[in-house]
Amino acid sequence: MTIKLDPWGYVDISDYDKLLEQFGIQSTSIILDKLPLKHYYFTRRIVFGHRDMDKWLEAYSRGDRVAVLTGFMPSGHTHLGHLMVIEELKFLQKMNVFIKIAIADAEAYIVRRLERTDTINYGLEYITHALAWGLDLDKTFFYFQTNNNTDYYRLIQLFSRKVTLSELEAIYGEISPGKIIAAFTQVSDILHLQLDCYGGYKYVLVPVGADQDPHIRLARDIADRFEQELGFKRPASMYHKFITGLDGNKMSSSRPDYAIFLLDDLDIVKKKIFNALTGGRATAEEQRRLGGEPSKCSIYQLYMYFIDNDSEIIEVYNDCINGKVLCGVCKKRIVDKIIDILKEHQKRYYEIRESDLLKKIVEIPNF
Amino acid sequence: MTIKLDPWGYVDISDYDKLLEQFGIQSTSIILDKLPLKHYYFTRRIVFGHRDMDKWLEAYSRGDRVAVLTGFMPSGHTHLGHLMVIEELKFLQKMNVFIKIAIADAEAYIVRRLERTDTINYGLEYITHALAWGLDLDKTFFYFQTNNNTDYYRLIQLFSRKVTLSELEAIYGEISPGKIIAAFTQVSDILHLQLDCYGGYKYVLVPVGADQDPHIRLARDIADRFEQELGFKRPASMYHKFITGLDGNKMSSSRPDYAIFLLDDLDIVKKKIFNALTGGRATAEEQRRLGGEPSKCSIYQLYMYFIDNDSEIIEVYNDCINGKVLCGVCKKRIVDKIIDILKEHQKRYYEIRESDLLKKIVEIPNF
Repeated sequence: MTIKLDPWGYVDISDYDKLLEQFGIQSTSIILDKLPLKHYYFTRRIVFGHRDMDKWLEAYSRGDRVAVLTGFMPSGHTHLGHLMVIEELKFLQKMNVFIKIAIADAEAYIVRRLERTDTINYGLEYITHALAWGLDLDKTFFYFQTNNNTDYYRLIQLFSRKVTLSELEAIYGEISPGKIIAAFTQVSDILHLQLDCYGGYKYVLVPVGADQDPHIRLARDIADRFEQELGFKRPASMYHKFITGLDGNKMSSSRPDYAIFLLDDLDIVKKKIFNALTGGRATAEEQRRLGGEPSKCSIYQLYMYFIDNDSEIIEVYNDCINGKVLCGVCKKRIVDKIIDILKEHQKRYYEIRESDLLKKIVEIPNF
Repeated sequence: MTIKLDPWGYVDISDYDKLLEQFGIQSTSIILDKLPLKHYYFTRRIVFGHRDMDKWLEAYSRGDRVAVLTGFMPSGHTHLGHLMVIEELKFLQKMNVFIKIAIADAEAYIVRRLERTDTINYGLEYITHALAWGLDLDKTFFYFQTNNNTDYYRLIQLFSRKVTLSELEAIYGEISPGKIIAAFTQVSDILHLQLDCYGGYKYVLVPVGADQDPHIRLARDIADRFEQELGFKRPASMYHKFITGLDGNKMSSSRPDYAIFLLDDLDIVKKKIFNALTGGRATAEEQRRLGGEPSKCSIYQLYMYFIDNDSEIIEVYNDCINGKVLCGVCKKRIVDKIIDILKEHQKRYYEIRESDLLKKIVEIPNF
């Protein structure tokens, strides 16, 4: 089966190994040794693939200037799926690299057809969460796609000369003027840090969900075409699996009952978790006999994404497949941990929101 | 016959009346009375058509804020065809309106595939000519399409949401990502003055060659679609005929032997004019008998575009059709006048170029 990656759709990418093979994405297993610090996202293969991240790590080891760029689509309230990306960035930041975060409000307006004010508000919410989660303000820079400056936009104009409509159709499928502008804007997000005026970072790593790989491929092709004219190098990328929503599908703000939003009332969080789809059997008796199925369990995902301690994960796993612990108990165990995380996080979130920090660190589009 | 307007081609539009009818462009004859000042471009129908210029004039009479926006494609050296546009602007400026001039360097790079440095140099040359011809610096603002600022570029992103690929194909024929970016950039040129941050000019007149009408129509459609969201009004436009090159086709820098460049050595100008195609007959005898044909004469065009005095034009015309004055004499008559104009103009041009005025009035793109 051919996997179709659509950065503007809602694709469930269940077979990540096929993805590696089909798109020539490298497995992260080969770069594990080269990471100067470890994170369970890598060992658990939540971050499962990359392109040229080995070269990026080599540049880092050599002491070259390296940076990380990622984007957030402000099309809904921030949920655990986004928090995972923020955690990923926080980990990379421990390596002491510069991090730039694009709020993809142009894309949210154009492709998702949101109101401008909503995209801006969702964007500000995300930024606040990133700060509350502990991204280092001295090494993090946020911007809105509709509120960057001249050289960034000039890239979009220049890029457009060297790409054909057929190429874009091959990458994205059905195309529209809006999708074309959104695609070039993304490529400018990915490549603009290489310009001297934006820091001249020639080694840029882009951590994204696998569905964003089409943008990465386009950016890498365009980098090649502007190697001579603008001195661009191919960006590196790293791909994470999406956290499952509480119904077993991708966690998305478009299905709010199955997503845990970072600002959800904590009682609601409890309720959502207790209603979540698990890998449990039809009856308690059956489950004791056959054991549960963690691979089908949205609760097990919460452990995998948010519990650092490997031995705890192994215990949960074994207790499940051996039928020793049933779903109710397992849910109770994780719910307290998630609540603790969110309680502390929400406290910091509201502190930041009430301060004037946001105004100081990001320019808000005026329309 | 259907007339196809292609802003990116080299279209010879010989039948201007058909153009009026086919595209719903209004004749300027009906607005002549409403012009507060006169210029022979209007009475000679060099400016032959418009859209909503009557409304623009009414706004002007009411004392509303009005502006003029036009663009120049920096794809070659400035010639008499461009000087005619500058003269048009100078005339409009006598009405005391704000004038903004886009150097369409994005378009020249994308569609005409010029080197960036060439587009910038041609652009600066054009600006210098505009100043040398006497545009009032206090009421004129120049910018490069690749060097405007955030709100201008945001418009391009927003516009792209509300236009389909089929619409663009219907307007422009075969389309490419580059042409799409160039088209939206032009629309942003045309509409951005309506934003408060650019002056909030709700009545904008765009004087252009008829081949640019596709951009005008797109801009008017997009203005309608953003009436509610951004408070846009339809821009007005006015259309001029192209001056004929010395071989009878459109004057273009791509055929330098038949264009008079504003910085041409004056001896070269003389030579070009003496070699020009005229409406003369095969022999002197025949011409004395039948008279010449001014409508086919590139020399007669020079009179029409650059000699203010109507009675002189009428005399030249009559002397020609009556076979009284032959082409050699007629050329001699105009050559001195053109040389005088250019001599004085070149002097001012080089004075400005040697001063630091340019650096003060326009930001030059850094790549």
